[in-house]
Amino acid sequence: MNAPDNPIHSATVMPRAQGGRRPGRVFLVGAGPGDPELLTLKAARLLGQAQAVVFDHLVSDKVMALVSPSARRYYAGKEAGNHSLPQQDINALLLSIAQDGVDVVRLKGGDPFIFGRGGEEMESLRACGIDCEVVPGITAASGIAACTGIPLTHRDHARAVVFATGHLKDDTVDLDWASLARPNQTVVIYMGLGALAIICRSLIEHGMPVDTPAAVIHKGTTPEQRSVIAALANLPDAVKSAGVRAPALIMIGGVVSVASAAAPGLGVDTCH
Amino acid sequence: MNAPDNPIHSATVMPRAQGGRRPGRVFLVGAGPGDPELLTLKAARLLGQAQAVVFDHLVSDKVMALVSPSARRYYAGKEAGNHSLPQQDINALLLSIAQDGVDVVRLKGGDPFIFGRGGEEMESLRACGIDCEVVPGITAASGIAACTGIPLTHRDHARAVVFATGHLKDDTVDLDWASLARPNQTVVIYMGLGALAIICRSLIEHGMPVDTPAAVIHKGTTPEQRSVIAALANLPDAVKSAGVRAPALIMIGGVVSVASAAAPGLGVDTCH
Repeated sequence: MNAPDNPIHSATVMPRAQGGRRPGRVFLVGAGPGDPELLTLKAARLLGQAQAVVFDHLVSDKVMALVSPSARRYYAGKEAGNHSLPQQDINALLLSIAQDGVDVVRLKGGDPFIFGRGGEEMESLRACGIDCEVVPGITAASGIAACTGIPLTHRDHARAVVFATGHLKDDTVDLDWASLARPNQTVVIYMGLGALAIICRSLIEHGMPVDTPAAVIHKGTTPEQRSVIAALANLPDAVKSAGVRAPALIMIGGVVSVASAAAPGLGVDTCH
Repeated sequence: MNAPDNPIHSATVMPRAQGGRRPGRVFLVGAGPGDPELLTLKAARLLGQAQAVVFDHLVSDKVMALVSPSARRYYAGKEAGNHSLPQQDINALLLSIAQDGVDVVRLKGGDPFIFGRGGEEMESLRACGIDCEVVPGITAASGIAACTGIPLTHRDHARAVVFATGHLKDDTVDLDWASLARPNQTVVIYMGLGALAIICRSLIEHGMPVDTPAAVIHKGTTPEQRSVIAALANLPDAVKSAGVRAPALIMIGGVVSVASAAAPGLGVDTCH
């Protein structure tokens, strides 16, 4: 995704800082889960007024279509394994644009403060005296819950919900399995598809029942949404058979049965 | 809050179901945390087109101002201890409106699927053959994180975030303390102010360090936002001294230090 028609400035072509000018502000803005109608009114307003936008690969073309035509656009990448800017270079890019007196929207998939490294970007900018405002976005878990009919909490199934990430590192996933395997909660794992077999096995080893309802949702809230629902023990095979790829969200817990009761099997894609 | 100028239909004045008419649809729509600019584009569109709106007390007047002037309005209450409709009456009201052939927006504070009982309303409606679509909203945790500069996750502090509710029942709070007290996560507790002392004491008894940074935020994202930041052991006294009342959100974990480093003490209210 993301091949906007407008020219995109390379990260190496930065405006030069100019002495004495009042620095610009940085808006760390959540772009939501994919469906452009799930942007907030505030995010849409800021995009329409933007002088510069720095965006990453999880931001859809339809969201980028809301950006002011006169805005400078900078692609910051961040797709696992693909060419993208290291975090420190993104921080430096934002700083450079702001120091040139330009207000900049840093547009991030989902919510900037949920696995978005928004906190790090905010700290880096504030340490340099740059004013930084955060605009929340619909996080993938909320957007996909709504779209699939899987509630994140429900008095019959889950009195708490936990969000974690499933990044693989040295063929392991560093999560607090004992805590995640506890009953009466919903577990949502972002960016965990590559580690799905490890995740399911680890949860079962730490006491989560093998028949716990679970789901993997690819590109939730977009026209390409695909879902697989299966018992926890069978989920990796079911996902493999269905050929589902990243980006995808994993949802585990009794709440998944609410959606599967309404639409058994794979047919829970009610959006679009 | 919530004394809209427009006439509000009493829940007892329901339109009669009429035979043979195609039933209306129900949209379970998240109104976000309070700031009307944090509604999604989709929620704003649906409110502007609505034929009927059923709303609860957590939905602000400024959000209600986006509702089509011709829409019927039904107040469903839900403020703890105050006069409001029981859940089964809300379900019956939604069903009755839809069966009369009227499309209805069920507007809920925050996100319908995070402590909003949206799952129960959806199940009840679908069981009666009513088409039901869920539109996510910015949940209080996301909105308040953005507004206070407290990230929900951060590589230095929290690799997971958990949302729970702190409702008092028989002077106790039924939460999985051992799980909530684990390190390297952010704990967000909705509707827990009345049980704040119990919550802090229970977390400490289950191993959470007494000096864990913690915050209570009243009416986050609105002009009335007030925040108190303190060490976990001191939070109940600090909140009492400051006179902070419900509605309020509790945030606990190392991430709170990110905001307090930027704006020590009570001065973290950067919105409005």
